[in-house]
Amino acid sequence: MAVALATLTFACGAPAPCPREARPTASEVHSHAARPDPERVLAYVLARSLADEVGPRLAGSEGDRRAVAWATAKMQELGFANVHREAVKVPVWTRVREEARVLSPAPQALAVTALGWSAPTPPGGVEAEIVEVSSLADADALGDRARGKIVFYNVPTLRARDGHGYGQTVPVRFEGPTKAERAGAAAVLLRSVGTDDGRFPHTGSMGRGTSRLPTAAVSNADADLLHRLGQRGAVRVKLVVDARDDGEAESANVVGEIPGTAAPGEVVLLGAHLDSWDVGTGAVDDAAGCGLVLAAASRFVRAPLRRTVRVVLFAAEENSVSGGKEYARAHAAEADRLVMALEMDHGTGAPYETRVVGGPGAARALGPLAAALAAAGAPLSAEAAFGGTDVGPLRALGVPIVDVRQDASTYFDVHHTADDVPARLDPEGLAKTTRVIELVVAHVAGEPVDLGRVPEGERKPRH
Amino acid sequence: MAVALATLTFACGAPAPCPREARPTASEVHSHAARPDPERVLAYVLARSLADEVGPRLAGSEGDRRAVAWATAKMQELGFANVHREAVKVPVWTRVREEARVLSPAPQALAVTALGWSAPTPPGGVEAEIVEVSSLADADALGDRARGKIVFYNVPTLRARDGHGYGQTVPVRFEGPTKAERAGAAAVLLRSVGTDDGRFPHTGSMGRGTSRLPTAAVSNADADLLHRLGQRGAVRVKLVVDARDDGEAESANVVGEIPGTAAPGEVVLLGAHLDSWDVGTGAVDDAAGCGLVLAAASRFVRAPLRRTVRVVLFAAEENSVSGGKEYARAHAAEADRLVMALEMDHGTGAPYETRVVGGPGAARALGPLAAALAAAGAPLSAEAAFGGTDVGPLRALGVPIVDVRQDASTYFDVHHTADDVPARLDPEGLAKTTRVIELVVAHVAGEPVDLGRVPEGERKPRH
Repeated sequence: MAVALATLTFACGAPAPCPREARPTASEVHSHAARPDPERVLAYVLARSLADEVGPRLAGSEGDRRAVAWATAKMQELGFANVHREAVKVPVWTRVREEARVLSPAPQALAVTALGWSAPTPPGGVEAEIVEVSSLADADALGDRARGKIVFYNVPTLRARDGHGYGQTVPVRFEGPTKAERAGAAAVLLRSVGTDDGRFPHTGSMGRGTSRLPTAAVSNADADLLHRLGQRGAVRVKLVVDARDDGEAESANVVGEIPGTAAPGEVVLLGAHLDSWDVGTGAVDDAAGCGLVLAAASRFVRAPLRRTVRVVLFAAEENSVSGGKEYARAHAAEADRLVMALEMDHGTGAPYETRVVGGPGAARALGPLAAALAAAGAPLSAEAAFGGTDVGPLRALGVPIVDVRQDASTYFDVHHTADDVPARLDPEGLAKTTRVIELVVAHVAGEPVDLGRVPEGERKPRH
Repeated sequence: MAVALATLTFACGAPAPCPREARPTASEVHSHAARPDPERVLAYVLARSLADEVGPRLAGSEGDRRAVAWATAKMQELGFANVHREAVKVPVWTRVREEARVLSPAPQALAVTALGWSAPTPPGGVEAEIVEVSSLADADALGDRARGKIVFYNVPTLRARDGHGYGQTVPVRFEGPTKAERAGAAAVLLRSVGTDDGRFPHTGSMGRGTSRLPTAAVSNADADLLHRLGQRGAVRVKLVVDARDDGEAESANVVGEIPGTAAPGEVVLLGAHLDSWDVGTGAVDDAAGCGLVLAAASRFVRAPLRRTVRVVLFAAEENSVSGGKEYARAHAAEADRLVMALEMDHGTGAPYETRVVGGPGAARALGPLAAALAAAGAPLSAEAAFGGTDVGPLRALGVPIVDVRQDASTYFDVHHTADDVPARLDPEGLAKTTRVIELVVAHVAGEPVDLGRVPEGERKPRH
């Protein structure tokens, strides 16, 4: 791997310093992005390496520790400076087992996955009739109907390029269990928050300490089955969940830099999360993001820019956002020197838009990039940037945000499932997205660009 | 359900006899097939009913018994005559549990499914290095290299409209374990015989009594992972299989007829298999086939034809072909009166071709159908028909065979996996295929057509 990386990173011929201008031109972006050889797409090679050679890496697990070692080694291999770990205390939830069956009218197994932070059922499981609801509001109106039963939230997730369907449905995952508990339910089944119609259930956090009910997602195919059976009469289900809250463990945000030449104290931050859910190998969520920010930054290793480019691979995004929160806490004093933050956590698709949020002059400051971004497939949008879970706490401190938006039409087919493996990576999408990030970094870190500060009233992101 | 079925079956208005000519015209076929309302596609509604209301139904299981009850009830509901069960002794293999992990270099779970008839591992599993081979011939050349190891067959399955990739790869599933045992291996892992690149492993029979080695299929994504890890060094894997040979049980071929008006002793046989693998609900394999033959035959309930149309839903195709073999044994004396047999076991796709094998005049005898078949999308081919697993033993007795071939391009993505559920059914493909079967039946059972007998030399089908 070391050889391949060296070849890819220092394409102009290491170890001599690269004589070529580091900023790719629009035509270069196009010729590079057209049907690339996957083995030459660094973001893809890195994402696959993390998924294959580390595998599942839920915060606090043995995989998480190996992921931190992987990230440290890869940053060093890529030639980053100041590679280090910043300790993060992460809460630990451990899945042991889950299983569900329709008992009647048509005995058969259901494909389920416990939600993160689900309590266990009693060892023999919960056996009860299901009560289907199609919204959180329906759950509020349950009255006594769900007492001792299993509340079944059957809320489909809309497919959309910008992934907004997820934002609409995910509250059911966080708030649904609490509402069911309030209604006296014995357990919760949830239609997977995902856009596929197949048999992989989608896990995800329900929030630590939100509800004491055992809660599992059923695959969308099984949700449809439960709905169809429910239209014919009562449906009895058995649910077994074994899972533990294992307290706290130490993990780390892993950081590496390409120090700036003229203004090393001014920092462009590129983030992604290193952890993953335990059911797949987190190839699209978020090895892809890790690969993208590492690959884009590595372009500047031999041709550093005016400002420092800093890559942060965050800990524990999935189960608690501990890494993102701790990073902002520890770096609050430095926030004014973070000239921009960008987070990649949207999978593997091609880029389609670039957005910014900052001071009133932020969009104008990116103006010189407009043509190149448009040529690269990601024109500047007038909409304000969002950021992401891990850089949200930096935005709250006023740090300007740039979004490189990727087509997420198929992202939520795979998200948080066992099928999130390297086969789902799109080398071409990753190559194109890398180029757009490179364009943004080359401009914002390469010039004395001023994106200002996010005004007080806009520091809480709105989707 | 009864109401919906009645509406669909007796569209001309039951209970009065249907005044309309039962044979659909080509233009009728087209107008019916264009973007149908799924709830009005009888083959689809029946297939979904079997998958949902019975679910998994491996031979000898409780689901198998419920499937026999389902088939009997549905034939009666559809108005078939002479509905009965013909007892079949079926061998019983029961899956208890399976689990596999990469131990080194990158600890992580593998998605595996034991093959049908796999022996169990010792309770603690088998832990050993894998030895990858890419063909059965490679396995013959293993020498001592695999002694005590896990042989990993990594043979990809080609995607093809006619599904011939499956025919090329499936010998690895049947012969691979024996060859590995001969080489002194401790267990076998097999790249799934399937065309997808995802995380569902494909089960399937390795043949009863062929090898004493624990044998499991890994998903194609995991096969790719093992291959990539193997290129970097030794890969140690742990495999746990718990499964039992549970001896014999009684199941049944379920039979129903639409008695012929002029020649009731001459029979056109339409077959599909009622059993399924245990990992999914067998929607495409072979609830689809059951739905197709039931739907096509039901068209003639109120407008019977010259000859008898007989539907046979066979037992135990997946684990032993016991139903098909027993049927031919029990009906050998009647073989000369079976004027044609047709088997549907190719999923849910649209039809693309019709083939026949029989006496020298067989193709000519279907000549009058040529234009209608072509208009329905399934022109007559000059190639000889194949038949299928369950009607193969009838072909061996000389019974002429007609194939209505369906597009199987995506069939082996789902085949024998947990994802074989109603979401994978294609109502439009099923509607179109139903019409083609109806055309064939209307001609061969409606006219004194003579397809002759399959000559001695062609009674063993060749793919």
